[in-house]
Amino acid sequence: MEEASHPYVPRDLKLPGYVPISMSMSSILTVYLGASLFVVTLVWFLFGRKKPQLDKLLMCWWAFTGLTHLILEGYFVFSPEFFKDNTSCYLAEVWKEYSKGDSRYAGRDSAVIAVEGITAVIEGPASLLAVYAIAKGKSYSYVLQLAISLGQLYGCLVYFITAFLEGDNFATNSFYYYSYYIGANGWWVLIPLLISFRCWNKICAAANNVETKTKKKIR
Amino acid sequence: MEEASHPYVPRDLKLPGYVPISMSMSSILTVYLGASLFVVTLVWFLFGRKKPQLDKLLMCWWAFTGLTHLILEGYFVFSPEFFKDNTSCYLAEVWKEYSKGDSRYAGRDSAVIAVEGITAVIEGPASLLAVYAIAKGKSYSYVLQLAISLGQLYGCLVYFITAFLEGDNFATNSFYYYSYYIGANGWWVLIPLLISFRCWNKICAAANNVETKTKKKIR
Repeated sequence: MEEASHPYVPRDLKLPGYVPISMSMSSILTVYLGASLFVVTLVWFLFGRKKPQLDKLLMCWWAFTGLTHLILEGYFVFSPEFFKDNTSCYLAEVWKEYSKGDSRYAGRDSAVIAVEGITAVIEGPASLLAVYAIAKGKSYSYVLQLAISLGQLYGCLVYFITAFLEGDNFATNSFYYYSYYIGANGWWVLIPLLISFRCWNKICAAANNVETKTKKKIR
Repeated sequence: MEEASHPYVPRDLKLPGYVPISMSMSSILTVYLGASLFVVTLVWFLFGRKKPQLDKLLMCWWAFTGLTHLILEGYFVFSPEFFKDNTSCYLAEVWKEYSKGDSRYAGRDSAVIAVEGITAVIEGPASLLAVYAIAKGKSYSYVLQLAISLGQLYGCLVYFITAFLEGDNFATNSFYYYSYYIGANGWWVLIPLLISFRCWNKICAAANNVETKTKKKIR
C-alpha cells in the first residue's frame, strides 16, 4: 500500500492508507453544534420542567458532555483506523478534522487513548447519570458531579502535560492549535472547575449541617 | 560518552550514562518500610490521640501516601537524569530499582511523568492536608479524601492502560512485573477504592440528612 500524504504535523507522522477528509470544517461544526443544540433544548424543555434555572443549565451540560464523551470520544477510542475511513462517516470526519489541532489522535498516542478511553467508558455514562440525579434530586447528585468534573480535569491535565513534554508540536498551524487544541478543550477545564467548586461547597455545607446537629444532640 | 548497559527491558532502551544501582533491593526496601513505619507510628501515637481507630488508620495512610507522593515521586518527576546518579543517593537508587518493574521510569515516558507530576505536586500536599482535616474534624474531610482517592485511581488507570497499549513489556522479568508493577501499585488501587466507597457513602448520608430536614421544615 502506498503511503498517502496527510495534513498533520509533525510531517514525518506515518499514516499509511490515510483517506483525505471529505467534509468541510463548517459542515462538521454545524452538525456538532446543531445536534448539541437539539439535545440541550430537549433537556431544557422536557426534563427540566419545575427545576431552578441553574439545575436546568447543569442538566443540559451533563447531557451535552455525556453524549460527546459516549458517541464522539467513544467512536475515537474504538476506531483505531478512522483516518483510513473512505465512507465519509461523520464521526471519522470529526477526528480527521480535530487531528489538525492534535495529530496524536490520528497517531494513536497511548496517553490520549487512555484518557479518552476513561472519558468515554466511565465519564460518559456517569454524565448521563448526573442528568437523572439532578432531575430526581438524588442524594448522590453533588458527589457524582464532583467526581466526573475532577475526572475531566485530571484528563485535561494529563492531555496537556503529555503534549508539552513531547514538544507541543502536534498542530497543523496556530489557528488549529488555538481553536481546537486550546479553545475546544478549554471548556472542559473551565466548566468542570466551576462545577467542582460549587459541588465541593455544597458537600461541605451539608457536612457542616450534620455536624452542628450532632453537636446539639450531644449537648 | 559510551553507552552503559542497563538491566531494563526493552533491551533497546537507550540510557546513555547509566550508572549501575549500588544498593541492594533489601536495603532499599528496609529504608522505605522503616521510614514509613516511623511516620505511621508517629501519626498513630502523636496526632491520633482521642480519635477512633479507623480515623487513626486513615491518618496514617494519608501521612504515608502523602510523603511517598511528595518525596519519592516528587524526586522522580524533577530528576530526569536519576539513572546517571553516581552518588548512591537513596532516592535515585529507589527509581533505578523500581525501573526493573517498569522501565518507563528510567525512559522518561511522558504519560508516567504526567501522572507522577500530578500525584507529587497536587495529591502529595492534599494527602497531608487530609491528615490535618481528619485530626481537626473539618467539614471538607470526606470530600477531600474522596477527591484524592479518585485522583489516585485515575492515575493508576492511565498508568496501566498506557503500558498495556504500548505492549506491556517494560519489566525485567516476571518477578519484578508482579512484585513492583502489579504488587506495589495494587495498594494504590485497593485502598483508594475502599476510601472512595466510604467517603461517597458518608457524603450521601449527610446530603440525605439535610434533605430530610429541609422537607420537614417545609411541611
